[in-house]
Amino acid sequence: MATDPRPIGVFDSGVGGLTVFHALEQALPGEPLIYLGDTARVPYGTKSAETVIRYTLEAARFMLRQQVKMVVVACNTASSVAIDAMERETRLPVIGVIEPGAGRAVERSRVGRIGVIGTRATVASGAYKRAIQALRPDAEVLSQACPLFVPLAEEGWTDGDITRRVAESYLEPFKRAEVDALVLGCTHYPLLRGVIGDVMGPDVVLVDSAESVAHEVSRRLHDEPALAGPQDEPGRGEHHFYVTDAPEPFQVVAERFLGRPIRCLEWASLEKTNERGE
Amino acid sequence: MATDPRPIGVFDSGVGGLTVFHALEQALPGEPLIYLGDTARVPYGTKSAETVIRYTLEAARFMLRQQVKMVVVACNTASSVAIDAMERETRLPVIGVIEPGAGRAVERSRVGRIGVIGTRATVASGAYKRAIQALRPDAEVLSQACPLFVPLAEEGWTDGDITRRVAESYLEPFKRAEVDALVLGCTHYPLLRGVIGDVMGPDVVLVDSAESVAHEVSRRLHDEPALAGPQDEPGRGEHHFYVTDAPEPFQVVAERFLGRPIRCLEWASLEKTNERGE
Repeated sequence: MATDPRPIGVFDSGVGGLTVFHALEQALPGEPLIYLGDTARVPYGTKSAETVIRYTLEAARFMLRQQVKMVVVACNTASSVAIDAMERETRLPVIGVIEPGAGRAVERSRVGRIGVIGTRATVASGAYKRAIQALRPDAEVLSQACPLFVPLAEEGWTDGDITRRVAESYLEPFKRAEVDALVLGCTHYPLLRGVIGDVMGPDVVLVDSAESVAHEVSRRLHDEPALAGPQDEPGRGEHHFYVTDAPEPFQVVAERFLGRPIRCLEWASLEKTNERGE
Repeated sequence: MATDPRPIGVFDSGVGGLTVFHALEQALPGEPLIYLGDTARVPYGTKSAETVIRYTLEAARFMLRQQVKMVVVACNTASSVAIDAMERETRLPVIGVIEPGAGRAVERSRVGRIGVIGTRATVASGAYKRAIQALRPDAEVLSQACPLFVPLAEEGWTDGDITRRVAESYLEPFKRAEVDALVLGCTHYPLLRGVIGDVMGPDVVLVDSAESVAHEVSRRLHDEPALAGPQDEPGRGEHHFYVTDAPEPFQVVAERFLGRPIRCLEWASLEKTNERGE
């Protein structure tokens, strides 16, 4: 079998994409991964499509410099509005979180009424709705932006009365519509899975894209451009992390999240430099 | 009296600095103002001092290109960590929100126990505490970051049960310490003044820097570099607005906030361009 030792690039607006990174690491332990978090400009979900596309193009150039063989766009907002830009710029296989998440939701929904929660930009793009209805044209798709979920997760208020009330307020339309699947369309939302699940009740499937994305990456790598080598030798590939703001706060969050020390963490610049390199 | 027709530059990370812009417009109706909101990279309050300084230096160069006579840094986070950088780069008079807010708090506090709420970066900098204790060395200063206040204000949830509970949670230490003045150390917080006031009670003075800043700007302009002309001819100076993300959402918020249409709103780039100007 042909092998390709180049790393897989994982791009996110900040730390949330570590959920996708973690699923990839679990599914493909032999693959070297490069994580890029644009922590200096996070969040993307409140910004215009034009700006998110511009930032994604800069990330694309960074990924080319890292000589990756494939790019995974872990950020839902960038996946919603800038997958084409990433593909055009890198000419590499690019996998976003929308199609795998949509596919999973369609698989799991019995009645075909599917809810989607995400950032304002993700919801405004209509990307999940299009992807779901491409697979199941008669699906009813309801969407709702939940801007407070990210700061609640970052504040560590992942349960408790305040978060429950915020969730009740945002999720009420989905309960009324009796959806039976809800896409957690932002990398932070799985951190609030407990509260969201309690509010929605046990009959509603919560869809987190991370595992579906890992499955899709694995499928594609058995095809083209190819795996780095045997996947039963975990840790062969050293992972590298790059962030655009100071590394220290990222390191704390990432180590807590991944449950182990991370090495190879560097401060990266995505913005263009002038002719003097400043 | 000497006059100086050049505009005053007002720099903020986003839309929140419109509170300062509005106070300036009221206090100095004859002065042309230039507002710069870095909406493509907002918020600053969750980012490192290094990154906020870098963004502020880019804003400084923008202000130089606009040939302003003075810069007002409306953003509390940038005022906390990057006033020196703005002064060094522009060599112009620069007025931040920290000293005026601190001065006002010291004036209004009877017992000398003063609370400060702001972003994580503002609180971590200790800038308000230093400024307050420079004026009143025996003052006790308590600080607390309130990361959920900005998204609550932006979501429009400026009252109601959820916001009240969040405020109770953040403000409890100030009530226990019996502060008698509380600095609203982030431009968004005055939008939650009602709830914050209810939680703190009528004996606690809430200090919003905007008016103190306008007063300080006025004082400095009667000195050097000089007013643009008589201040009893409002509207002489056309105001210009620049934002780094798409203008349309800013326009909606700004017109609602200022209560009138805004003209002269443009998309600006602060990031360095390469030699081809791309």
